[in-house]
Amino acid sequence: MNDKQESPLVGVIMGSKSDWGTMQHAVAILEQLNIPHETEVVSAHRTPDKLFSYAEQAESRGIEVIIAGAGGAAHLPGMTAAKTSLPVLGIPVQSKALNGMDSLLSIAQMPAGIPVGTLAIGRAGAANAALLAASILANKYQPIKTALQAYRQNQTETVLANPDPRGDLS
Amino acid sequence: MNDKQESPLVGVIMGSKSDWGTMQHAVAILEQLNIPHETEVVSAHRTPDKLFSYAEQAESRGIEVIIAGAGGAAHLPGMTAAKTSLPVLGIPVQSKALNGMDSLLSIAQMPAGIPVGTLAIGRAGAANAALLAASILANKYQPIKTALQAYRQNQTETVLANPDPRGDLS
Amino acid sequence: MNDKQESPLVGVIMGSKSDWGTMQHAVAILEQLNIPHETEVVSAHRTPDKLFSYAEQAESRGIEVIIAGAGGAAHLPGMTAAKTSLPVLGIPVQSKALNGMDSLLSIAQMPAGIPVGTLAIGRAGAANAALLAASILANKYQPIKTALQAYRQNQTETVLANPDPRGDLS
Amino acid sequence: MNDKQESPLVGVIMGSKSDWGTMQHAVAILEQLNIPHETEVVSAHRTPDKLFSYAEQAESRGIEVIIAGAGGAAHLPGMTAAKTSLPVLGIPVQSKALNGMDSLLSIAQMPAGIPVGTLAIGRAGAANAALLAASILANKYQPIKTALQAYRQNQTETVLANPDPRGDLS
Amino acid sequence: MNDKQESPLVGVIMGSKSDWGTMQHAVAILEQLNIPHETEVVSAHRTPDKLFSYAEQAESRGIEVIIAGAGGAAHLPGMTAAKTSLPVLGIPVQSKALNGMDSLLSIAQMPAGIPVGTLAIGRAGAANAALLAASILANKYQPIKTALQAYRQNQTETVLANPDPRGDLS
Amino acid sequence: MNDKQESPLVGVIMGSKSDWGTMQHAVAILEQLNIPHETEVVSAHRTPDKLFSYAEQAESRGIEVIIAGAGGAAHLPGMTAAKTSLPVLGIPVQSKALNGMDSLLSIAQMPAGIPVGTLAIGRAGAANAALLAASILANKYQPIKTALQAYRQNQTETVLANPDPRGDLS
Amino acid sequence: MNDKQESPLVGVIMGSKSDWGTMQHAVAILEQLNIPHETEVVSAHRTPDKLFSYAEQAESRGIEVIIAGAGGAAHLPGMTAAKTSLPVLGIPVQSKALNGMDSLLSIAQMPAGIPVGTLAIGRAGAANAALLAASILANKYQPIKTALQAYRQNQTETVLANPDPRGDLS
Amino acid sequence: MNDKQESPLVGVIMGSKSDWGTMQHAVAILEQLNIPHETEVVSAHRTPDKLFSYAEQAESRGIEVIIAGAGGAAHLPGMTAAKTSLPVLGIPVQSKALNGMDSLLSIAQMPAGIPVGTLAIGRAGAANAALLAASILANKYQPIKTALQAYRQNQTETVLANPDPRGDLS
Repeated sequence: MNDKQESPLVGVIMGSKSDWGTMQHAVAILEQLNIPHETEVVSAHRTPDKLFSYAEQAESRGIEVIIAGAGGAAHLPGMTAAKTSLPVLGIPVQSKALNGMDSLLSIAQMPAGIPVGTLAIGRAGAANAALLAASILANKYQPIKTALQAYRQNQTETVLANPDPRGDLS
Repeated sequence: MNDKQESPLVGVIMGSKSDWGTMQHAVAILEQLNIPHETEVVSAHRTPDKLFSYAEQAESRGIEVIIAGAGGAAHLPGMTAAKTSLPVLGIPVQSKALNGMDSLLSIAQMPAGIPVGTLAIGRAGAANAALLAASILANKYQPIKTALQAYRQNQTETVLANPDPRGDLS
Repeated sequence: MNDKQESPLVGVIMGSKSDWGTMQHAVAILEQLNIPHETEVVSAHRTPDKLFSYAEQAESRGIEVIIAGAGGAAHLPGMTAAKTSLPVLGIPVQSKALNGMDSLLSIAQMPAGIPVGTLAIGRAGAANAALLAASILANKYQPIKTALQAYRQNQTETVLANPDPRGDLS
Repeated sequence: MNDKQESPLVGVIMGSKSDWGTMQHAVAILEQLNIPHETEVVSAHRTPDKLFSYAEQAESRGIEVIIAGAGGAAHLPGMTAAKTSLPVLGIPVQSKALNGMDSLLSIAQMPAGIPVGTLAIGRAGAANAALLAASILANKYQPIKTALQAYRQNQTETVLANPDPRGDLS
Repeated sequence: MNDKQESPLVGVIMGSKSDWGTMQHAVAILEQLNIPHETEVVSAHRTPDKLFSYAEQAESRGIEVIIAGAGGAAHLPGMTAAKTSLPVLGIPVQSKALNGMDSLLSIAQMPAGIPVGTLAIGRAGAANAALLAASILANKYQPIKTALQAYRQNQTETVLANPDPRGDLS
Repeated sequence: MNDKQESPLVGVIMGSKSDWGTMQHAVAILEQLNIPHETEVVSAHRTPDKLFSYAEQAESRGIEVIIAGAGGAAHLPGMTAAKTSLPVLGIPVQSKALNGMDSLLSIAQMPAGIPVGTLAIGRAGAANAALLAASILANKYQPIKTALQAYRQNQTETVLANPDPRGDLS
Repeated sequence: MNDKQESPLVGVIMGSKSDWGTMQHAVAILEQLNIPHETEVVSAHRTPDKLFSYAEQAESRGIEVIIAGAGGAAHLPGMTAAKTSLPVLGIPVQSKALNGMDSLLSIAQMPAGIPVGTLAIGRAGAANAALLAASILANKYQPIKTALQAYRQNQTETVLANPDPRGDLS
Repeated sequence: MNDKQESPLVGVIMGSKSDWGTMQHAVAILEQLNIPHETEVVSAHRTPDKLFSYAEQAESRGIEVIIAGAGGAAHLPGMTAAKTSLPVLGIPVQSKALNGMDSLLSIAQMPAGIPVGTLAIGRAGAANAALLAASILANKYQPIKTALQAYRQNQTETVLANPDPRGDLS
């Protein structure tokens, strides 16, 4: 499950295999930024004991940020946060009937005391969870700061280089 | 915590003391129907281990129905259901900003595999959770069936006896 | 209409044939758990008298739980509950324009006095209605408890056995 | 219950006495337009049999339009319409948690086959139900047409006579 | 434009040709019930003067009910009602971005004084507008009452004859 | 009705006197910026003919921008825009039940062909309608540009001068 | 980037190339009305400095109206308005998960002090932004007024010429 | 503005003084955890240049986390994130008309590339932003980890010590 030989700094968990279509966008950016990470299916509802042991042991295993994605009555991010004081970032996976509004509210509207940093519904949120994890780690790990700043600068330059909405003129 | 000398059949739990204003309407009806019950604050987010042990042990302690109320990103009913195969009924407590729409979606939109029977937002939902618990128990306990049917009949007769919306004419 | 030779314990009703695509997920789980049941189209709006006689007679026919699915201004679960004190579970069928938000509110927001245990919108809700019916019956029927616990355990083990979101490694 | 000595043409029903604060605005306009009417509490959920007999007998008693108000999972208008082919007008009473959005959807989103003419949430909807009932009856009863047109003209003239939003200048 | 040789009793108007896919379901039922009617595109925003003259002249031309369908910021039903005291029924056409929630609120939430009887979003609402128009006219025209009652009875019998959700058994 | 001796450039209209609590915030800024304007109650629903003549004649009377505020099924801004090619700015007045969400959608969701520039719900929207009217007029009238830029600069300086959220330190 | 040889009066900006499918409907109408304009991708989030310099310099470059389209947490219109006192018109681009409701609220709900004239979600809003820009410029430029009035008149005549919703009869 | 003599690690900014009622709950927890911080009013819309210089300079001044609160079309968190690669946490302040749903969507629904970790609407979100900032800093600063763990443990023990929802028994 460990995607890198180095000890992972970021744990990417999701409630179901069907969330991978969304969550892979987080993993792609972690890989691009060379951030050691792991990915695992951990269902709050179907494997609650595994969720508890995962969250309890994450810090001692060297994890510094947890990214958790889930849809519908999405309890994975909040319950992970209940069992660790590591920063937990939540990704509302787009649900079938309500388009992720249920996922967003189930993750963002946490009561005072247990924080989850919530990102946008779906693919954009997954990408941004990885970038926010990078910015958190960048305070401590200079190579991650360097990689993140390069990513951000490249992103800006790409937009600046293509100002015509109708397509490249070259 | 045990509100009756008999062993409780219904466990009424809530995420915070501030939910009592809502949840007392469930307890009042359980008392009226003479159903042995217990009440306890169990926070999914602040006391996750207690939640897990409560849910795990409920069945062996003789509990047959769990009523769980919570507001906002309400994870208590769903996580309780994840740890027991007893019937779990969820009450969305009315939240400050979003009036309980977040609570409702966080409780009702459970993924396939772990059911929570969700009632209405707020006081009406609390009352109805108690009545639904009674109807569940009534299949097995004749005195509860008798009490429930009397409650329902009395409710109907009260409305029938007062058909004028402008108030009693007597 | 009776799907089992044994007298049915669960009545599965729906407002229209077009709800079968959703409701079959409830029936599939009832079959898997070997719970005697029956299925029938009963429209609150087009066949109100049939709804009333169905709800009135269900208990004397041996039904112990009613599962009712409907979409839009979904009145079937609530009106069934108005005519019986059996436990009624409601499934909001996903509607075309509003994606089932109308169905959810029409079923969940019942006034105090007449409870409906509401499940999630659509297929997940249908599956969970069957599981909640099983948990209700399991208090009284040991074979159903055994079947339900096996179902739940199998569900957990399936997730545990496949922790890699990218697919099986074997 | 009959508010006029003449046989009532409009039946005004509501799910609970607590709806009177809204529904009185319908009754006030019926009185102003001199339309014979009756008012009665008829709860779809607590007195379903009364609802059925009311709806079934309304036409033979001479009722030509039914105005039904209810809140939350508001089933009264739709179930009335299921039991009569008289025109049924529905008023979504403003609910506590969801401000009547649940009432509106539960009344307006009827499936094809059973119509309910839905008005606005709350007091404005109640007033407009009475005016729509008047316009329905005015096709057949000339005195009601005369009264309605006078009401409408007076309404227009009142606005025209006071064009300054800051108050009367006299 | 006059779809019947008899003088039309119902005017069916819509904001745009693109609404025909919805509105044809109203027209189909009017034809089935043999109710004389006319259909016309009348845009509140693009042809406001035509809207005003249509609404002003409808009553003198013998129209007794107006059915108006529109989507988005749907002003056609409300502005028609502002210019006539005939009963106006509004159909919220399903809009692209907001699925008709904008249409529904723009039609249903009329201020006190000018009523619009609002039906469901889309095709079901169109069918029900025709049925409500029929119920309005049936108070005055016995053949329409007869046709409406036959339609309703046939609808009920069709459901009763096919109670198995899995399909016909014959 | 003319609030200034100069010929008014901005017409401020609203559906009802009760909208004045909101609309006065537009008028206050027009006065502060010394922009000639007029205010008038013009109800789309109660005085449709006045609305049409107001909108038709506005341009020839020298009006260059119309600000229209209304609540609920708010048709005033859109119908004004249907009758003039002057720029029309719409203010969604906060409604009782739905907090102005109905007003916002009824004003913003105009179909292609007839534009309304929509501002925020309530008081902030009213203030901003006046500022947007000023920015429109400022392209042509230098004194209005000067006044608007001073207003904006002053606004910025006020915030800059008070950076401590806990209150003034002086 | 300048689409016309004349100095542009309207600047059309958008947050991403993917918004062009929506924004082209604004550009098409500007071209039809012969209004000099320019189009450019300017991302509030990826190229904030370019946004600031664009907004700061627009007025001195002769731009008189800015049309800005963006989706999701759409900050482009509001931040443009924060940096210029030119009229800014905002187009909520339809977003994937929430269908543009997020875009609409992020653009329309500006605080008092900084106005954005918001149009409808998606294509209709883009077309209307161009028409509103035309109406703003028409106060000052007679040829634009002439072109706009011809466009509006032609639009009306097209609808009037095709009143039958079922298609052309010729 | 610097609330501590030590160089601040957390910058707490808000769009307006009126946000202090919400934001003070973040500051109270930062103080309780002894985390050096600063607070300042920085309006995205009224003082955009200050926002840009604040965000640009924060990292070089030693800030490691920025907490930004705003309401309505809340652009402050997202625009701050556009100008820094530090972690930015956003607090949706409860707005008047839409109760903070607009604030939540304007902050959470950021496009891919620029992340904002979003907390709950209002006071709970403010408290949780401080706790999430603490968890971010705790990866690097042992005293903050110690303080955070003590805070969390105390929070859990307080709930455990008071399990009776009806009040203290002592």
